[in-house]
Amino acid sequence: MIMPMKLLEESLNRKVVLLLKDNRTLEGVLTGYDEYMNMVMDDVEENSDTVTKKLGVVVVRGSNVVRIVPA
Amino acid sequence: MIMPMKLLEESLNRKVVLLLKDNRTLEGVLTGYDEYMNMVMDDVEENSDTVTKKLGVVVVRGSNVVRIVPA
Amino acid sequence: MIMPMKLLEESLNRKVVLLLKDNRTLEGVLTGYDEYMNMVMDDVEENSDTVTKKLGVVVVRGSNVVRIVPA
Amino acid sequence: MIMPMKLLEESLNRKVVLLLKDNRTLEGVLTGYDEYMNMVMDDVEENSDTVTKKLGVVVVRGSNVVRIVPA
Amino acid sequence: MIMPMKLLEESLNRKVVLLLKDNRTLEGVLTGYDEYMNMVMDDVEENSDTVTKKLGVVVVRGSNVVRIVPA
Amino acid sequence: MIMPMKLLEESLNRKVVLLLKDNRTLEGVLTGYDEYMNMVMDDVEENSDTVTKKLGVVVVRGSNVVRIVPA
Amino acid sequence: MIMPMKLLEESLNRKVVLLLKDNRTLEGVLTGYDEYMNMVMDDVEENSDTVTKKLGVVVVRGSNVVRIVPA
Repeated sequence: MIMPMKLLEESLNRKVVLLLKDNRTLEGVLTGYDEYMNMVMDDVEENSDTVTKKLGVVVVRGSNVVRIVPA
Repeated sequence: MIMPMKLLEESLNRKVVLLLKDNRTLEGVLTGYDEYMNMVMDDVEENSDTVTKKLGVVVVRGSNVVRIVPA
Repeated sequence: MIMPMKLLEESLNRKVVLLLKDNRTLEGVLTGYDEYMNMVMDDVEENSDTVTKKLGVVVVRGSNVVRIVPA
Repeated sequence: MIMPMKLLEESLNRKVVLLLKDNRTLEGVLTGYDEYMNMVMDDVEENSDTVTKKLGVVVVRGSNVVRIVPA
Repeated sequence: MIMPMKLLEESLNRKVVLLLKDNRTLEGVLTGYDEYMNMVMDDVEENSDTVTKKLGVVVVRGSNVVRIVPA
Repeated sequence: MIMPMKLLEESLNRKVVLLLKDNRTLEGVLTGYDEYMNMVMDDVEENSDTVTKKLGVVVVRGSNVVRIVPA
Repeated sequence: MIMPMKLLEESLNRKVVLLLKDNRTLEGVLTGYDEYMNMVMDDVEENSDTVTKKLGVVVVRGSNVVRIVPA
């Protein structure tokens, strides 16, 4: 049994891909999170339908997260 | 009487199909969950309308889950 | 006065029809539930607009439920 | 001052019309409710845009309720 | 400083207009409310886009309320 | 560091513009609020796409608020 | 490990870009926040699809926030 929060812990300082409810994806290094699944990422590249953006550091509010894929 | 969380426990390390609110399905092995129905899955294949993706390990935020079908 | 949870209890091991927020219906035997209206059903047939599927056992997250009709 | 829950209590065993968020109405006898406005109704007739259905007993999850009109 | 709940108290037994999230308005006498902004109204006239209805007594679930205007 | 609630306190009896989730704006004097960001405003003028209305006193349910701009 | 709230603290009095659920962005100096991610910003420029507005001081309700990018 792997608790979801435990997997986030194991993903710290590794690349992850976040999918958000508005279909945006954020790809970057997971550098922090809390119990609401609020997250901090670094070196983020964001993709939404047609646009790609380099964002650097990003704080994501957990309520927008659909799934996290450790890369 | 089978408590929903009990059925998740019995589904550990087995194949399940998750349906999410955005109509996405995730098919893979359930390796973890918590009381919010946040889940960890492995060997995930994701289907959304027209696209199929191999995702490997995935953390799903419980608030997006519609139903879980043990395979 | 019949408490909603009491009616669910009386519906255990009986056929019910669940209507979900995405207009999907699940018809099957109610085998479990908890205080969030998360439910376990067996022998489920799912109908959504044009598609009918046999699903077997299903866990439904309560936040998606609109109404339950004991059959 | 009439507390909303008090009015539900006074409506027990009487006809009420429930309007749900998806614009569905349920007309029937209120036979139970709890503090989340989950409700039990009997002899329910459901109307949604073009379809009318006889449903008998129904449990409604409170989060879907817009308004209740005692008939 | 006028607390929102205090203004509701002062509006008891007076005419108010409620705007709901589905753009429906309810005009009538406020006869009760609770801490979730669930409300009881009397002599209600409901307007939604093209339809006007006389509803009499109505219980509104607070989560649907956008704003209240004391008349 | 200015706590959001502190800024609301400093905005009491001043003009503010509220933006709501349905894209409606309310412009008026902030006369009260609580910890849910429920608010009381006076001398309110409401703008929604094509319509402008004078509303006088208004109670806004906090869950509808997007942002507040002290004028 | 960088807690999301810690990163907000480090962003105080610096420029940040907020993305909201309605696709609006607010660019300005973060001058405050609380545990719900309600935020106070100053010197805000707001962009929504086609319109750019100078707003000065803004309080944002946290439930609308998607992501925060320290500039």
